[in-house]
Amino acid sequence: MSLPRAFASDNASPAHPAVFAALAAVNEGAALPYGADAWTARAEAWFREQFGADTGVFLVWNGTGANVVALRAMTRPFSAILCAEPAHINLDECGAPELLTGCKLIDLPSASGKLTPEMLHAAVRGVGDEHSVQARVVSVAQPTERGTVYSLAEMSALCSAAHALGLLVHVDGARIANAAASLNLPLRAFTRDAGVDILSFGAAKNGCMGAEAVLVFQPSLGADMKFLRKQSMQLSSKMRFLAAQVLALAEGDLWLANARNANAMARRLADGVRGVASVRILQPVEANAVFVMMPEAMVRRLQETFQFYVWNEKTGEVRWMTNWATSPEDVDEFVAAIQDAGRSSPVVGH
Amino acid sequence: MSLPRAFASDNASPAHPAVFAALAAVNEGAALPYGADAWTARAEAWFREQFGADTGVFLVWNGTGANVVALRAMTRPFSAILCAEPAHINLDECGAPELLTGCKLIDLPSASGKLTPEMLHAAVRGVGDEHSVQARVVSVAQPTERGTVYSLAEMSALCSAAHALGLLVHVDGARIANAAASLNLPLRAFTRDAGVDILSFGAAKNGCMGAEAVLVFQPSLGADMKFLRKQSMQLSSKMRFLAAQVLALAEGDLWLANARNANAMARRLADGVRGVASVRILQPVEANAVFVMMPEAMVRRLQETFQFYVWNEKTGEVRWMTNWATSPEDVDEFVAAIQDAGRSSPVVGH
Amino acid sequence: MSLPRAFASDNASPAHPAVFAALAAVNEGAALPYGADAWTARAEAWFREQFGADTGVFLVWNGTGANVVALRAMTRPFSAILCAEPAHINLDECGAPELLTGCKLIDLPSASGKLTPEMLHAAVRGVGDEHSVQARVVSVAQPTERGTVYSLAEMSALCSAAHALGLLVHVDGARIANAAASLNLPLRAFTRDAGVDILSFGAAKNGCMGAEAVLVFQPSLGADMKFLRKQSMQLSSKMRFLAAQVLALAEGDLWLANARNANAMARRLADGVRGVASVRILQPVEANAVFVMMPEAMVRRLQETFQFYVWNEKTGEVRWMTNWATSPEDVDEFVAAIQDAGRSSPVVGH
Amino acid sequence: MSLPRAFASDNASPAHPAVFAALAAVNEGAALPYGADAWTARAEAWFREQFGADTGVFLVWNGTGANVVALRAMTRPFSAILCAEPAHINLDECGAPELLTGCKLIDLPSASGKLTPEMLHAAVRGVGDEHSVQARVVSVAQPTERGTVYSLAEMSALCSAAHALGLLVHVDGARIANAAASLNLPLRAFTRDAGVDILSFGAAKNGCMGAEAVLVFQPSLGADMKFLRKQSMQLSSKMRFLAAQVLALAEGDLWLANARNANAMARRLADGVRGVASVRILQPVEANAVFVMMPEAMVRRLQETFQFYVWNEKTGEVRWMTNWATSPEDVDEFVAAIQDAGRSSPVVGH
Repeated sequence: MSLPRAFASDNASPAHPAVFAALAAVNEGAALPYGADAWTARAEAWFREQFGADTGVFLVWNGTGANVVALRAMTRPFSAILCAEPAHINLDECGAPELLTGCKLIDLPSASGKLTPEMLHAAVRGVGDEHSVQARVVSVAQPTERGTVYSLAEMSALCSAAHALGLLVHVDGARIANAAASLNLPLRAFTRDAGVDILSFGAAKNGCMGAEAVLVFQPSLGADMKFLRKQSMQLSSKMRFLAAQVLALAEGDLWLANARNANAMARRLADGVRGVASVRILQPVEANAVFVMMPEAMVRRLQETFQFYVWNEKTGEVRWMTNWATSPEDVDEFVAAIQDAGRSSPVVGH
Repeated sequence: MSLPRAFASDNASPAHPAVFAALAAVNEGAALPYGADAWTARAEAWFREQFGADTGVFLVWNGTGANVVALRAMTRPFSAILCAEPAHINLDECGAPELLTGCKLIDLPSASGKLTPEMLHAAVRGVGDEHSVQARVVSVAQPTERGTVYSLAEMSALCSAAHALGLLVHVDGARIANAAASLNLPLRAFTRDAGVDILSFGAAKNGCMGAEAVLVFQPSLGADMKFLRKQSMQLSSKMRFLAAQVLALAEGDLWLANARNANAMARRLADGVRGVASVRILQPVEANAVFVMMPEAMVRRLQETFQFYVWNEKTGEVRWMTNWATSPEDVDEFVAAIQDAGRSSPVVGH
Repeated sequence: MSLPRAFASDNASPAHPAVFAALAAVNEGAALPYGADAWTARAEAWFREQFGADTGVFLVWNGTGANVVALRAMTRPFSAILCAEPAHINLDECGAPELLTGCKLIDLPSASGKLTPEMLHAAVRGVGDEHSVQARVVSVAQPTERGTVYSLAEMSALCSAAHALGLLVHVDGARIANAAASLNLPLRAFTRDAGVDILSFGAAKNGCMGAEAVLVFQPSLGADMKFLRKQSMQLSSKMRFLAAQVLALAEGDLWLANARNANAMARRLADGVRGVASVRILQPVEANAVFVMMPEAMVRRLQETFQFYVWNEKTGEVRWMTNWATSPEDVDEFVAAIQDAGRSSPVVGH
Repeated sequence: MSLPRAFASDNASPAHPAVFAALAAVNEGAALPYGADAWTARAEAWFREQFGADTGVFLVWNGTGANVVALRAMTRPFSAILCAEPAHINLDECGAPELLTGCKLIDLPSASGKLTPEMLHAAVRGVGDEHSVQARVVSVAQPTERGTVYSLAEMSALCSAAHALGLLVHVDGARIANAAASLNLPLRAFTRDAGVDILSFGAAKNGCMGAEAVLVFQPSLGADMKFLRKQSMQLSSKMRFLAAQVLALAEGDLWLANARNANAMARRLADGVRGVASVRILQPVEANAVFVMMPEAMVRRLQETFQFYVWNEKTGEVRWMTNWATSPEDVDEFVAAIQDAGRSSPVVGH
């Protein structure tokens, strides 16, 4: 279990010590199950402080569950959900969105992982035509799966375009804290205030053991949410243990500190390898991911010591993730190994 | 948060201190996500020791999830799932089994919560008739939702009858440890060896924060399970934290000690109220539940101080649950209150 | 192909000659597909004359399709649909309602096939409880699958009770014409005006080749119907051929004449066998079905010459159906054979 | 209802007179419903003569239904279905495949409407990875929705590549007769013998009122088909009327004559407009469709008199369909109008 060598996934990170302390703090005696306890109320209150007093808050087990519950609240089975081709809901949820919503996902090619108003306009078709699914939701990841971050202007423009087209906006915020750190904006400013309707708020990658939340900014969309959460198998019986994790992140803005460290370590890693001729950085490094292309032999050699994934089995693209626990020493050790491996590798085109 | 007063649900119990210790023990550095870590392997090994070396083990978030994933592996959408009317899958999962499997649940009236071979024979109809759903699974809870426990002979006979009818057998073992303690049998003896095909193994009610497992005894039924688990949103990213909870229960047979305490406390409670003329015990107390009928005014008065549910809003039936953390003092305090309330209440028919 | 011997199903009947004439009449040249043709407009207009000018009309292929499309418009996947145990949607649609709606069907035992307000009150439970499906629709067959007919008072009372409980009312009117003939009431009087929200209007059993309609009396329920029909694979491309069948039934109230004949033949059959000691009639004969119990040997002997089904494989109950084409001679021949077979059969209890 | 002006859809065509004669011929007396009649057996026998004695034959209502029933037989909900982007199952079935199968459709860009082995190789990813849907079926239209026809070599190569990748092959043959006419091959030669596993056989566009069939060439895939058909609401009660339509097409190879006429009329139309400078033909005209680009004003002017669709609202692409009933005079009248409109229109790029 060697922490320094882990660049595979922010899910590979341990839980923050404060999370353990919070869990222990709530483990006193009995508590009514399924969220009817005091700690869940406190966690909900924290979300409402961040996002507005009428925010609907629904704690769930995991990110796929958060996305699916959110999408179910926004759709009927003849709806279509627009997303970027690399979206987690499109590639990494084993078809859960289709099965649970009954909807078609319309995935739009996007090298950066971002969608634009123009892409929405081009994709919405067959409105009112009974043969065609009816576009109803655009789901975007913030940060994207390619490690890029929508600027506030970009997000606002996208939401405006979506609403003008009759679409609701869902944000997959599995790493929303990293976006906040990157943008240096309050959570609400670039989500709800930019026009987002429902947010999947991620906590697991931000230092928790396992906890996420669906946050509903359009009250009418939340009317059936408790049934949708339960029917989607995302209602925890001993909810206090999810709430405690959120409360740990809330305390002293730990969530932000964790995200800032992860982002800083990704930048340090990118900066460290920028001079290596056999490594090409593929995306702006705006959050906690670094996507690179390098010779296959170099990938194999580095994987003997360091954990990371080949992101795209077709192109050979490689992904390095940093997280709240990554230290400068971890990065520097990795950079040194990359530099070393790079010396005996061919140059890649830029 | 008053522990002594909690008889509402075994989900109201805290987590056992050993579970916390185990969680802390696995929180060292990075670990590959989604179960590719050493602790998950150890938890799986423990299950295989208990149930057989070829047991398929799939850790999941919660009990509804375990049941749904298990049922998906056993059915196609035109299948029917037979169960007792009070079954959790029938009454308490908000239709998740229907939505995720597409199947019809055929619920059979059963005051005790148990099914019998005769009930299966009467329920299976329209075999091979394309207008009729095709009975494929019988799902039973052990212990049942009414706090009764199938004897080994009953379970064996039910499995034999099911298999003879072409049905697979699923056991909802949300409280399987309580059944083992009640029967005083190894876990395997009254499940796999009795003919059960898939078991939902419950850990949350047995002292964990949140963890369950689907155990597959027919290897062919497990072939697609990893996809079904993921698509059912039941795959944890930081799996080590589910595994740790199982390992805590395994250590020194903590699972059995916890279950024995819960069962003993339920018997103590039942014994304590047996002489109260205004309380009628409705079911044999074989696990950790006591079902009683008593005057509505008495229910209201007791609920001012103690937490418990009216189980059936139509009949007024009341359910008291004990758990791993219930102490003799908790029970005695409750018994005293019941006796006290009973003195001013009318006698109920027995 | 011996018409006289067919008492198996009203689906066994041929199409009425007027239906052929109508089909030929619409087969002139091209017509825009999917209902954008003049004949479909005329068929819709006929339905609106019968049921009110704001009735939503959606022609579909078959009865199962009509029911499913109707139920989809009234539910979300966490809804529950209440119905009588012998309902077609419960026993004879191979789980299509569950698969397409995602909902649980809650089937209520009913020997007569009818539901009552009291049964609804007893069945609705867990309102607002996230663990429980939420009762949303009561679906009744008129006539019922047991050949009985709700009186106007019964239907009105049921609809009132349903609405008071927050339920919508769906009527499976696969044989709605037979109910109209039995009640001697306009179609609207005992459906829409009695409080029904959506009606599956049957035409196939009433003399057509294959055509049904979903009629929506609450305009808001019809908003998405065209998408639901298409996604449920119930949108005919050459819709004029469905419309023509409806127009044939409409012409000169052929639908009513057909239903009256079927009903009269069922009564004639019931009257003819009433004196046979080995035959017991099980239900009031109010439409075009006669349910009887008789010795198994007698069933077998009669089935050598006449087509009819054993309705319930468990009880041995037998169903005889008449239809628009059944003649008095057909019935008399059957009655004679039953009387003959009865002479050598034991008496059954009444 | 002006036949000459109809180039909108082959669904706009009337039914062939022989179909009416066949319907009348089967309308004699009673017939057991749901396919247990003699005519259905004869229709099935005809399909078996064409495709092999062990072909599974399942008559259904319509093309969307045929495709969905076929796909359900080939998949589980975590499967993926590969198809060309313009595929009917992708664009024109309102999400029925997703809802009924639960699967993700992966649509591959294809200007010609055809798929190639290379496209399959590039699209299959994440095999065995639980986060990814598992590619299981490739569904191709023959002819394609762009009016092109796979050659025998192309179809064979595609099937071989698919099987090598572990994929089953479904053919959407809504216009399969047009492909047979185009290829001048027996139906079996370019479907089953080329490696196709299941075929949706279209009859409605080929001169029927409404009838299609699912043909299963891998017997194991047909094992559950009758349940899937019924649960998909595609089982006709008075099946003889579907069978009769098929028998009419079979008689004297009417199906082939109808298809040949449609194809010839499309070629005649394409040939007629090839000299018009403001019209650009976009696809090889290999079946009964002509896709063209022309100035929007010209489209509007022609649509005042002739029925046809703008196929792609984004590009302005126009589709003209011919059918079994289109006459040379119909085409010539249309061509003259196009030439006339073209004289006052600008030239389009080729």
